[in-house]
Amino acid sequence: MKIGIYGYGNLGRGVECAVTSAPDMELVDVFTRRAPESVKTLTGAKVYHVSEALNFRSEIDVMIICGGSATDLPEMTPELARHFNVVDSFDTHAKIPEHLKRVDDSAREGGNLALISGGWDPGLFSIARVYSSAFLPSGKDYTFWGKGISQGHSDAIRRLPGVVDARQYTIPIEEAISAVRAGDSPELTTAEKHRRLCYVVAEEGADRAEIERKIKTMPNYFSDYETTVEFISREELLSEHGGMPHGGAVIRNGRTGLSGESSHTVELNIRLDSNPEFTGSVLVAAARAVGRMRARGATGAITMLDVAPADLSELDRLTLISKML
Amino acid sequence: MKIGIYGYGNLGRGVECAVTSAPDMELVDVFTRRAPESVKTLTGAKVYHVSEALNFRSEIDVMIICGGSATDLPEMTPELARHFNVVDSFDTHAKIPEHLKRVDDSAREGGNLALISGGWDPGLFSIARVYSSAFLPSGKDYTFWGKGISQGHSDAIRRLPGVVDARQYTIPIEEAISAVRAGDSPELTTAEKHRRLCYVVAEEGADRAEIERKIKTMPNYFSDYETTVEFISREELLSEHGGMPHGGAVIRNGRTGLSGESSHTVELNIRLDSNPEFTGSVLVAAARAVGRMRARGATGAITMLDVAPADLSELDRLTLISKML
Repeated sequence: MKIGIYGYGNLGRGVECAVTSAPDMELVDVFTRRAPESVKTLTGAKVYHVSEALNFRSEIDVMIICGGSATDLPEMTPELARHFNVVDSFDTHAKIPEHLKRVDDSAREGGNLALISGGWDPGLFSIARVYSSAFLPSGKDYTFWGKGISQGHSDAIRRLPGVVDARQYTIPIEEAISAVRAGDSPELTTAEKHRRLCYVVAEEGADRAEIERKIKTMPNYFSDYETTVEFISREELLSEHGGMPHGGAVIRNGRTGLSGESSHTVELNIRLDSNPEFTGSVLVAAARAVGRMRARGATGAITMLDVAPADLSELDRLTLISKML
Repeated sequence: MKIGIYGYGNLGRGVECAVTSAPDMELVDVFTRRAPESVKTLTGAKVYHVSEALNFRSEIDVMIICGGSATDLPEMTPELARHFNVVDSFDTHAKIPEHLKRVDDSAREGGNLALISGGWDPGLFSIARVYSSAFLPSGKDYTFWGKGISQGHSDAIRRLPGVVDARQYTIPIEEAISAVRAGDSPELTTAEKHRRLCYVVAEEGADRAEIERKIKTMPNYFSDYETTVEFISREELLSEHGGMPHGGAVIRNGRTGLSGESSHTVELNIRLDSNPEFTGSVLVAAARAVGRMRARGATGAITMLDVAPADLSELDRLTLISKML
């Protein structure tokens, strides 16, 4: 299966690494909006300008689109799905139905198959929510995120006057997780499930108390949360907080029995050293499924909820059945 | 969707309870090998003798077969798949490929769809192994079972002279789970991952030391394990150990990055008050998928690895996408 990568940032590099672990796949081309000669890939894969992508229609089986959800993917995915089988990681939850519709229209027009919103949330976590609610229909589920870096919250801090750089960790509150794991089904807001830890590099002479106040009172982002602000040096930020770890858990408690007398808990828990590398790895498995499902005749837009687990695996069906079932 | 239950023991009752939680399903008939008039169902569903099942072909959309894997299912499932869409929970791992082939042949002959080996292991745990290995191809996974009652081990103890009754709990060893969760990838045998705790009711005057010695030295079942034997009264056995709890975890550690520099852990963990009720609930969701996939034209034998998550859910696709993705 021949793979193209459209957009070459952290996620594009994660996809590139993941393709090297897939014996049934080959990375043929990378497309960038920058000057191609200025981009050096990790594996030496060839780089072209995005404007040339359509010339490669015949040699790419699935294009993995590695753009941002805010402005890139709403344009890129419908446009590219007209010409390629594609996978994206669109993660603006509220806008997914609209994105799905637009991508579905253009993929059908082009006779292609497009998988949107791949990754871990949406993606693996969505899958966990669907399985656990299908198996425990009388119940309640909880999603916890972290410990991990939130890009949006880090950016919000960086925009404050006097701030040179910042990293914000979203951290699940251990007592909330424990209560849910114990089978309780409390009503918890996002703020009651998570706290926020901010590492900030301030300009010399900046008013740190004022920066801390501005962060802690920032509506939507921080004001509803237990927020901790720590000022550190630029060197410490880079050496101690330069990675992109993330993780989280989906926990569902449910009841069975004629009158709900038995209680059950199903939990999916992930711990990731590198968010973009794991997300890239999920997108590569999704691309495999897209190639297979397209070969069986499927077109239009799908999500990971529409993909059978076996289609994601490099192993053939009988090996899966004898080794993993 | 109209459901039949073939075999009415603990699992059959679990399925019966689960159907009451499914707004899109109706339990129409229960079939038993006992005298039908001697069987009273939990919900008042009608009971017929198994010999009458074929008369109900036109009114049952999916038959859920609730027999044992040792001798019932190898006969029942191929036979019934000729006449009905079916679901079973065949769990003799080594014989699954052979069972799949036989069921596939007869289901195709009858133009039906059969899902075999539904439940949690095989079933939900198999799904977890496939997803996590597809997303982390360079890695290693571990399955832990328990804390829960093992029927086979309890039976083995009951067969010893001087034993009135017994319950055996399989318990995962916490240190092994912690090592795996921490991202280590040790080589561990089943015996290094689990210990065994036996509650035994002895006949009056029986040689307890001899019973304990016989249990602890029993090959395959106990001799390789750290085994604890406790003698208790019949009353305590019934009041404290009368339930059928179970659970376990599938944990995969994997590496990504060009040279495996990032480490990740994906864990599915379940805790069940009632093994047969949860298994029954999984089989009912599987029956829903079988009904839908058959309506789209599928025939033959499949497993839960061939089923897209969305097909298991009572919710329609757009609701799933807007609420769970």
